Amino acid sequence: MTDSSLNPMLRPRSIAVIGVSREPSKWGYKVFHNIVSNAYKGKAYPVNPSTPDIDGIKCYARVGDILGEVDLAIIIVPASAALQVVDECGAKKVKALCVITAGFSEVGPDGAVLEEKLKQKAASYGMRMLGPNTMGFVNNSISLNASIVPRMPPKGEISFITQSGALGLSLVDWAIGSNLGMNCVVSTGNKADVSEADLLEFFEQDKGTWTIAMYIEGLKDGRKFMEAARKVKKAKLAIKAGVSQAGARAAASHTGSLAGSDAVYDAAFRQCGVVRVEGVEEMFDAAMALSTQPKANGNRVAILSNGGGAAIMASDACERRGMKVPELTRHTKAGIARLLPAFASVKNPIDTVAKSDYDIYREALKMLIDDKDIDCVMVIYAHAGFTSAAEPARAVIDALKEKYPKPVVACWMGGREVNAVAGMFRRNRVPFYPAPERAAEALSALIRYNGFLKEAGK
Amino acid sequence: MTDSSLNPMLRPRSIAVIGVSREPSKWGYKVFHNIVSNAYKGKAYPVNPSTPDIDGIKCYARVGDILGEVDLAIIIVPASAALQVVDECGAKKVKALCVITAGFSEVGPDGAVLEEKLKQKAASYGMRMLGPNTMGFVNNSISLNASIVPRMPPKGEISFITQSGALGLSLVDWAIGSNLGMNCVVSTGNKADVSEADLLEFFEQDKGTWTIAMYIEGLKDGRKFMEAARKVKKAKLAIKAGVSQAGARAAASHTGSLAGSDAVYDAAFRQCGVVRVEGVEEMFDAAMALSTQPKANGNRVAILSNGGGAAIMASDACERRGMKVPELTRHTKAGIARLLPAFASVKNPIDTVAKSDYDIYREALKMLIDDKDIDCVMVIYAHAGFTSAAEPARAVIDALKEKYPKPVVACWMGGREVNAVAGMFRRNRVPFYPAPERAAEALSALIRYNGFLKEAGK
Repeated sequence: MTDSSLNPMLRPRSIAVIGVSREPSKWGYKVFHNIVSNAYKGKAYPVNPSTPDIDGIKCYARVGDILGEVDLAIIIVPASAALQVVDECGAKKVKALCVITAGFSEVGPDGAVLEEKLKQKAASYGMRMLGPNTMGFVNNSISLNASIVPRMPPKGEISFITQSGALGLSLVDWAIGSNLGMNCVVSTGNKADVSEADLLEFFEQDKGTWTIAMYIEGLKDGRKFMEAARKVKKAKLAIKAGVSQAGARAAASHTGSLAGSDAVYDAAFRQCGVVRVEGVEEMFDAAMALSTQPKANGNRVAILSNGGGAAIMASDACERRGMKVPELTRHTKAGIARLLPAFASVKNPIDTVAKSDYDIYREALKMLIDDKDIDCVMVIYAHAGFTSAAEPARAVIDALKEKYPKPVVACWMGGREVNAVAGMFRRNRVPFYPAPERAAEALSALIRYNGFLKEAGK
Repeated sequence: MTDSSLNPMLRPRSIAVIGVSREPSKWGYKVFHNIVSNAYKGKAYPVNPSTPDIDGIKCYARVGDILGEVDLAIIIVPASAALQVVDECGAKKVKALCVITAGFSEVGPDGAVLEEKLKQKAASYGMRMLGPNTMGFVNNSISLNASIVPRMPPKGEISFITQSGALGLSLVDWAIGSNLGMNCVVSTGNKADVSEADLLEFFEQDKGTWTIAMYIEGLKDGRKFMEAARKVKKAKLAIKAGVSQAGARAAASHTGSLAGSDAVYDAAFRQCGVVRVEGVEEMFDAAMALSTQPKANGNRVAILSNGGGAAIMASDACERRGMKVPELTRHTKAGIARLLPAFASVKNPIDTVAKSDYDIYREALKMLIDDKDIDCVMVIYAHAGFTSAAEPARAVIDALKEKYPKPVVACWMGGREVNAVAGMFRRNRVPFYPAPERAAEALSALIRYNGFLKEAGK
C-alpha cells in the first residue's frame, strides 16, 4: 500500500461510474463492465438517471444518491455536463476523479477554457483528477480494470504511463500476446491535473511496480517531472515521441503537445535517471531486463554461446553499444575449458562448439557469474534442430536459482521449439530475446540505468 | 535455369553422397536422408564400401561404381581420406564437390596444408568445390536439401549465404517458425574454392532468388567480392560480423577470418551496392521488403495510422533514419479528408482517429500511392481490441492488387489477432512488422538499396 495522494484514484475501495450505458458498444458500458467482470473486490456503483439497472445492478440517478463512500468517480458524460457532475462529486465528497469524457483542450481553445474550469473545480473540492480525455487505467494488483482496455494484461512488475490512450490499448494487447506482465497501465489523457510526475511518485511507493515505462509526447512541467523522476529509485524508461519535424507536427494535433528539443529531452532524461528508448519493442525488451535482473556493477559482459556466429554478432552488438567483452580470468578460462572439447573457444565470447548440454551451460554460467572481472552475462543458444532448446534453458534457470548477484540475459535463436521455451524463461524471470542485438540493447539499458544510480550515489 | 559454373553444384541432376552412414545421429546419414526424403527429382547415390544399403537403397562401394553420371559429390569422409576420394571423383568425371568433412584450415596449419592440396586437386579435375567444413546447402526451387538442416524452410525469394553453418541452421529454424520464405541457403565453410563472389554470380542468374542475404566474418578476396557484387542487380544485404575487438578475436578462432577494418567494409559495401545490416532480425526485416516491393524513387514516406501515438513514433523513426515525412499535396489531403471525421489529421502522418474500416484504409492507401510527392507508404494499425485487425489488412492487400508502383510496408501492433494477420500479409507479399521502428528500418534498407541503383545508373 502506498500513501500517495493518488491512492483513492488508483487503489480505490469504491468507484462510481457516472454516465454508464446499457449499450455494449459505448464506453459507458465497457468501463463499468470491465470493473465488475474482473476480480476487483471494491464496490462499483453505476450512475445514470435514465437507466434503472445495468447488467442487473441497480443504477443510481446521481452520485449523491449512493449511500456508501465513493473513493473514485469515473466520468463518461458529455463534455457539456462534466462541470455539473464534478460539482455533484464534490458535494458527495468523492476523493478522486477519472474523466474519460473528451472534448476539452484537445479540440481547441473553447475546449481548453472548459478544461481549465474543470481543473479548478476539481481542485476546489480537493479532488485529484486523471484526464480529461483519458482511456482510464488498469491496476492489476487489485484486479481493477477501470478503462476501456478489453482484456487485462498478465500480472507483472512493469507499470506503463501513456500519453496516447490508443497506443496503451495496443500495447496491452501486445503484452497479452507475448505474455509480458504488467502491474498498472495509466492513460494520462490531457493531464489537466495528474501528470507523469504524480504517477512517478505513486509508483515509487507502489509495491507491485518495479519498472516504470512511459510514452511521452510532451511534458507540461519539465522541472516537476525531473524532480519527481530524480526521487524515484525504481527503473524508469521513456519513449519521447514527436522529435522529428513530422512527428512534432503530429504531436501538436494529437495531444496538443509542444514537442520541445530532442537534445533537451535527452539531457534531461539522463540527468534524472530516465533511460530513453526509441520504440515500444526496445522499451519492452529493456523493461523485461530491468524488472527482473539485479544491478549491474559495470559494463563488462561475458558471452556464452553454442555457436560462433551468434557469439561474434553478440560481441559486436555489445561493443557497439559501449559495453566491453573482456577476456576472462585465467581461473574462469581453465574451469570452462575443463567442461568443453579441446577445440572450443574459452576466450570471451565463449563458443562451446555446438555443446548445449545442461551441465555445461549450468556450470559455465556459474563460473562466469563468479568471475570478478565480469559484470553481466549473455547466454546464447542457436537452435540447430538436433538438440533440445529447453535443456540449456533449464540450465540457465537452475544456475540462477543458486546464485544470482549479476544480471543475466538469454538469447535463444530459432523457431517453434525456441518460442516454446519463452514461457519457461518468463515464469522464472529470465529476460529472453530472439536476437543478440535485442539482448545487447536490453543489457545496455540496464547498464545505463545502473550507471545513473552510481552517479547519484544511490 | 542459370548458366553459372555452379549449376552442377547447386542445381545437380544427380548426387553421390560419399561417406553415408546407417547411424541416424551421423551427418553421413542426415545428409543422404535429407536428399531422398524431400521432393528432389534428381538421382541420389549413397557411397560407402562397408554398407550394403541405406534405408533400402543400394549402396556403392566407390563413386566409380556408379553407372550413371554424377553432377555433384557430397563428401563426408574423414579428412585423412578426402584427397583419395577427390581423386576417385575426378576419375569418375564428377562435375562438382561439396566437402562437408571438417579438419582443414579451421584446425590449424596442418589442416591448412591439407586444404590447399584438396583445393588444387579439385581444380586439377575442373571440379568446383564448396567447403570444406560446410554444412551443405538447400535449394528450395529443386526441393533439394543437401545439408544437415533438419527441415526445409518455406519456399520464398530470399537466398542466404552464410559463413557460419550453425548460424545458418538456426536461421532456417527461425525462418520456418516465422514462415519466412527462402530459396537457397548455402553454408560456405572454409571457402577454399567457392566464395561469396561465386555465389553472387550464381544467384544473379537464379530465377528463384530475388534478394541475397549474407553473413560474412571475413572475405578472402575483397576485390573479387566487390566486382561480383557490383554486377548483381538483385538486392543484396550483409551482416559483417567480427567488427568489435572481442568479435574479431572470436572470428579469428571461429572461421580463421581476419576481420578487417569496419570502416573499410562499410565503404566497400556502399560502393558495390550491398546494404549493410547489424543483425539477423534487421536482415530478415529488410529482406522481406526488398524481396517483395518495387523500387523506391526517393525517400519521401507517407504514414497512414489509426492511432496518433504510433503515427508519431513512425514519423520519428523515419526521419531518424534519413527519410522525409513531407506534407501531402492539397489534392491528396482533400481526398483523404473526405474519408475521415472532421477532427482527423490529414497532414502526414495521417491519423484516422481510430477508424480502420476497409474502405477508408483501401481508399486512403490508393490516394497516397497516387501522390506524386510520395515515394513509399507505411500503413499502421494499432489494435485496440474493438475492431478487426484483418479488415484493414485486407484493404491494404486489395489496394496493392489494383495499383502497386511504390513500396508499401505494413506495421500491425498488438497481440494474438495481429499475429493471425501475419500469414495473410505474407501470402500476399506485403512486408509486415510488429513495431514502427522495424518497419522504418526495413524501408530505410529498401531506399539505401535503391539509392545505390540510381547512383550506378541502373
